[in-house]
Amino acid sequence: MKQTVAIIGAGETGAGWAARFRVMGWNVRLFDPDDMARGLVGAVLQQARRGLPGLSDVALPEMGDMVFCQTISEAVEGADWIQECLPERLELKRKVFQKIQEHCKNATVIASSSGVFTVDELQGCATRPEQIIATHALAPVYLLPLVELAANDTNPPEVKARAKEVLQGIGMAPVEQQGEERVSVALQNALQAEADRLVAEGMASPSDISDVLRYGLGQRWAASGLDAPQDAVLVAMLRALKAQDAGAGVLLNRFDAAQAQPALDIKQPIPTVTRTVPLDWTDYNGHMNEARYLQAFGDATDRFMEIIGCDAEYIASGGSYFTVETHIRHLDEVHAGARIRIETQCLQGEGKKMQLFHRMFEGDRLLATGEHMLIHVSLDTRRASVPVDHIAARLGEIAKAHSALPVPDGVGQAIGVIK
Amino acid sequence: MKQTVAIIGAGETGAGWAARFRVMGWNVRLFDPDDMARGLVGAVLQQARRGLPGLSDVALPEMGDMVFCQTISEAVEGADWIQECLPERLELKRKVFQKIQEHCKNATVIASSSGVFTVDELQGCATRPEQIIATHALAPVYLLPLVELAANDTNPPEVKARAKEVLQGIGMAPVEQQGEERVSVALQNALQAEADRLVAEGMASPSDISDVLRYGLGQRWAASGLDAPQDAVLVAMLRALKAQDAGAGVLLNRFDAAQAQPALDIKQPIPTVTRTVPLDWTDYNGHMNEARYLQAFGDATDRFMEIIGCDAEYIASGGSYFTVETHIRHLDEVHAGARIRIETQCLQGEGKKMQLFHRMFEGDRLLATGEHMLIHVSLDTRRASVPVDHIAARLGEIAKAHSALPVPDGVGQAIGVIK
Repeated sequence: MKQTVAIIGAGETGAGWAARFRVMGWNVRLFDPDDMARGLVGAVLQQARRGLPGLSDVALPEMGDMVFCQTISEAVEGADWIQECLPERLELKRKVFQKIQEHCKNATVIASSSGVFTVDELQGCATRPEQIIATHALAPVYLLPLVELAANDTNPPEVKARAKEVLQGIGMAPVEQQGEERVSVALQNALQAEADRLVAEGMASPSDISDVLRYGLGQRWAASGLDAPQDAVLVAMLRALKAQDAGAGVLLNRFDAAQAQPALDIKQPIPTVTRTVPLDWTDYNGHMNEARYLQAFGDATDRFMEIIGCDAEYIASGGSYFTVETHIRHLDEVHAGARIRIETQCLQGEGKKMQLFHRMFEGDRLLATGEHMLIHVSLDTRRASVPVDHIAARLGEIAKAHSALPVPDGVGQAIGVIK
Repeated sequence: MKQTVAIIGAGETGAGWAARFRVMGWNVRLFDPDDMARGLVGAVLQQARRGLPGLSDVALPEMGDMVFCQTISEAVEGADWIQECLPERLELKRKVFQKIQEHCKNATVIASSSGVFTVDELQGCATRPEQIIATHALAPVYLLPLVELAANDTNPPEVKARAKEVLQGIGMAPVEQQGEERVSVALQNALQAEADRLVAEGMASPSDISDVLRYGLGQRWAASGLDAPQDAVLVAMLRALKAQDAGAGVLLNRFDAAQAQPALDIKQPIPTVTRTVPLDWTDYNGHMNEARYLQAFGDATDRFMEIIGCDAEYIASGGSYFTVETHIRHLDEVHAGARIRIETQCLQGEGKKMQLFHRMFEGDRLLATGEHMLIHVSLDTRRASVPVDHIAARLGEIAKAHSALPVPDGVGQAIGVIK
């Protein structure tokens, strides 16, 4: 049986809460005096549906329903949680709490999203103050787990217990407030005030301050708060940013692009990847995870595509290669910090087809082979098509040169079949 | 021709700079009056070698040499960069700069790591003040790209230009200081002061403050400084933390573990993965990247291993399965936000061998198949071995039940061979 949340006020915060509750399987009732709110809620929900479920490696419950209510009473009647997300005006909030309490169940938690008022203040004119707590979250509410949970002595223990249960159930991390201040608000204000001072005194531009946070300080705080971060965690975060080409990752990509590429001899297997195994590529068996072999082989394929002219510009124009089949043989283990290289032999390169054979080495030690069949496609129709002439010609030239090389061990082999 | 850096002072900061320069291909000369410094430098270098090269997706230059020098003159003579990493005592630094300038080249940049003294102060008693600048970095220097570059009007433009070139060449992001203060130090001090106040006034414990940073605020600052972060960037960072089971990722793993697992019917292919395609799993072709198919199949294999009793506890005891061969057929595309599921059929489960066949679906649409041969190994010897009895028995039971299922389409097929 799905539970029902009533969201009162559907601005950015309300829309964020609505989206998180709904994606996490709750039915949602929304009330906002402004009909325009519906558009925002729809957009935020779409964002949340793209982002939030992917944070889990398991299936979430089926998404709940969502209705817009015409009145507060309709929204809160029988609801299992009430989240107030109105503008930060105490009298407004108090009036709405009275209205809510005329219609809601006595046992339901009424949680205010306020970042400024104390629980005492929020409970001020309430019929049943013991129902009212504060749960303050950061945007985007549907992604960031932090929620500051504030209660006082008027709230019986079961209210706080229920609040924790509900918040954890929708994937949040309640941090209990010890005093009257929201810690996140205080810290954010302190940092912003210092940033404003530095700008006002000509010590830094706003973009300098963002750079200092993105390239260093923020990484540390995100990894481990005020404690010293672990290297593996920083590496994983920096690599995630790199894959998104965002924040500090932009610099890492720029650095890579500035490194010299070796000269090309197409009569030999082509060196397509030379890299170090990153700290975040190893798994519980203490060696490079199987999926990372394919990631490295995929990078080798990307580099080979670039060499034949199927580069970012060409892909943007609507052509690309899709992998249709992959055969990997894992021959030896490799560990974080090892320098690996991949050599790529073109087995076939005619018409729509491109068949590649990658060999991965550490030094002279053969670690794995990857055989890949790719098909050229039109990105508009998502169907097979022939590449443009200059790509066909360059691919043909390499395929012809490589046809003089011996057929590699393991080509055309099925799993478990020893030739 | 490798360039040479002289590092004066080999504490944590000096060791960090030495490690970054060396891993990035520079020869390193170190001077520290304390012989004990060598141990620290060795440990930091080892950390850096594990972490730093993996931030690049291309090969770094060959690592440089490193020598410990008995005197400052020996360290700095002919050096191409001099990095001063002494304790924050101005008179000490000034004395050492004089000594350095008796022996170093006139054109070499002398960079102070100081986080507190202005460039004017550092240049104070120097023979050639124009050579001296400040470059302040955060620990770990060998991972975080931030470096604050401070110069004054005494420094000719070529000194600043050279400094930027060298710092970018070793993978750092110089942020030019506009005034006399280090922005990172000011922001860090402001945040720490506010944290201290909150703790002193009973508003929060130190660990609450770390939680607020790790679960929310720090994520935002790391992603985009003071600007609003993009969802895809937050998702990628949160997922990186999850893979490390660190920071906010601990919560995400705890949430997953709390979700109910479906009941098991071993007469049918076993549902091993049900999940949503995360935002960071798509690539330039606009669909799920090939390596992520294998990641999902790898997760399916992990889940199957768990089901037969090869769980974390067993792996810790020294037994596991290694994948030796993989055959993937990509049959259809899938996009971020799609709910996928994998069903796993056991084709073989006897002795050391386990052969699995995974089918990945979105709804009824078959997206891909993965055929995998795994071998049970001893994690001590890294050689093939038989699993313990209870695993062998459970695996045998499932293999026998699955032998009644039809052999899936595509089993035992080689690439490009249409049966």
